[in-house]
Amino acid sequence: MIDPVIIGTVALDSLETPFGSVKNVLGGSACYASIAASFFSKPGILSIIGKDFPDKHIKFLNKRGIDTKGVALGEKTFRWQGFYEFDMNEAKTLRTELNALESYKAEVPKDYKKAKYVFLANIDPELQLAVIDAIKKPELIVMDTMNFWIEHKKVQLMKAINKADVLVLNDAEARQIFNTPNLVKAASAALKLNTKALIIKKGEHGALLFTDNKHFNAPGYPLENIKDPTGCGDCFGGAFTGYLAKTQDLSEANLRKAVVYGSIIASYNAEGFSIERLRSIKHEDLEKRYKEFKDIREF
Amino acid sequence: MIDPVIIGTVALDSLETPFGSVKNVLGGSACYASIAASFFSKPGILSIIGKDFPDKHIKFLNKRGIDTKGVALGEKTFRWQGFYEFDMNEAKTLRTELNALESYKAEVPKDYKKAKYVFLANIDPELQLAVIDAIKKPELIVMDTMNFWIEHKKVQLMKAINKADVLVLNDAEARQIFNTPNLVKAASAALKLNTKALIIKKGEHGALLFTDNKHFNAPGYPLENIKDPTGCGDCFGGAFTGYLAKTQDLSEANLRKAVVYGSIIASYNAEGFSIERLRSIKHEDLEKRYKEFKDIREF
Repeated sequence: MIDPVIIGTVALDSLETPFGSVKNVLGGSACYASIAASFFSKPGILSIIGKDFPDKHIKFLNKRGIDTKGVALGEKTFRWQGFYEFDMNEAKTLRTELNALESYKAEVPKDYKKAKYVFLANIDPELQLAVIDAIKKPELIVMDTMNFWIEHKKVQLMKAINKADVLVLNDAEARQIFNTPNLVKAASAALKLNTKALIIKKGEHGALLFTDNKHFNAPGYPLENIKDPTGCGDCFGGAFTGYLAKTQDLSEANLRKAVVYGSIIASYNAEGFSIERLRSIKHEDLEKRYKEFKDIREF
Repeated sequence: MIDPVIIGTVALDSLETPFGSVKNVLGGSACYASIAASFFSKPGILSIIGKDFPDKHIKFLNKRGIDTKGVALGEKTFRWQGFYEFDMNEAKTLRTELNALESYKAEVPKDYKKAKYVFLANIDPELQLAVIDAIKKPELIVMDTMNFWIEHKKVQLMKAINKADVLVLNDAEARQIFNTPNLVKAASAALKLNTKALIIKKGEHGALLFTDNKHFNAPGYPLENIKDPTGCGDCFGGAFTGYLAKTQDLSEANLRKAVVYGSIIASYNAEGFSIERLRSIKHEDLEKRYKEFKDIREF
């Protein structure tokens, strides 16, 4: 059973941080999210790659139990080039080549349509809407986005937001969408829509989960060695959705746990370039950090 | 018994936030800190005011059990004028009039010298050093500062830091003093000095407590109505020190509680201009918010 279905980008990234640089490495929101989800469940990806995409990456994803039959083949893979300065909270883009993504229409394989959990990772909201329409009886639709879509496709974005159950945004995106500097007010506005939960990712400062009349504040993990924050937000959303797909429990208490597992995978991801650190993470590593997350919060 | 002794500024502030403006209101690091400490213990202030300082403020402080015999009298009170934009994490200064502060030499009353707890609120590090020297047998010296002293009096500042037990800094100050963007590395550097604990105040993102091999992450309280963040950091340090002076317990577990009480008083302080919100706070309000702080971090 494919769960969750994840739509997003598959990319070849070139980037520089104060701690090194890499060229044409595996990236993209669907990659990060599906690798994160694969710690808990069997995700399937909807995306597009080009003929230049190394086959070893597909083999790696499949080996992790990630279904890739929803990945279409175009001419050239989406590429992103960027860098981070000392404040690694913000990625600076040098160049984006949409390539095959430009004309991508998501075709949803038959067995994907039966999925109960959906993660709409960061991609054009029209594609997110197409996936929402294709999944027959979703139990939970989790959705991410980015400032580009807020600025350029707000109408379609709001349509998608109105059909999603959980929004996963960073603080700047939440402020921008709901037009207020105050995150508590942004949450009230979100919860007046169809949204059942708003999650605000704050990078090193942790994450907030707002539900009807509850508020959860997940700590940021204190990282001594951050190498590359690319994909941390995607990892968060993928792990969050994957954990819920595994546990099939949508109580507020379990959403809190899912937020913590999302934070854990994201914290490991930042310790290496591209998806490198996640390759070596085992289940006992997750449980070790889960215990640490509890410990740093105890009073 | 006077405890803690607090050195810092007493000011008349004029400021504007997106939610209103006030003129010549009570402010200054020693005022905020001592009011915060007075929820737990009987602090005494070392500072200077001018002949223009309204007597009602002194009466108010005394009524809260704050000893003001360490407050010297000069010509004109220190004045600060500033504003906040929508991102209320950063105060912008329009004008600073040092006035009487310029030639202030701290004279420490006899009964202050017997204090066990000391809070060196933000002020010239030479004055902080003078107080350290005057207190006979301090059990705990807690110290705050600001970017101005890091830039202009680094030598004296480092001398004071080397004599303090607990540093209370905001994230930018910690990065600046220890010359690293990484807060975990800043903490390691601080703990290699005489410092027993480094606390990093992160405003709406909460606070971090680093001790020898422990790390505590206190959540930020989700405020729907922030009116004026002036003095929140001073409140934090004052409440932290006051709580420890009351409980006389320097275990790591109790330092965590002191951090939470510091966060609670700071969160209330932001709900009003100047010290207005703190006037009406009762002990049951502290306990109510303490319970909320527990609840929002439970998983």
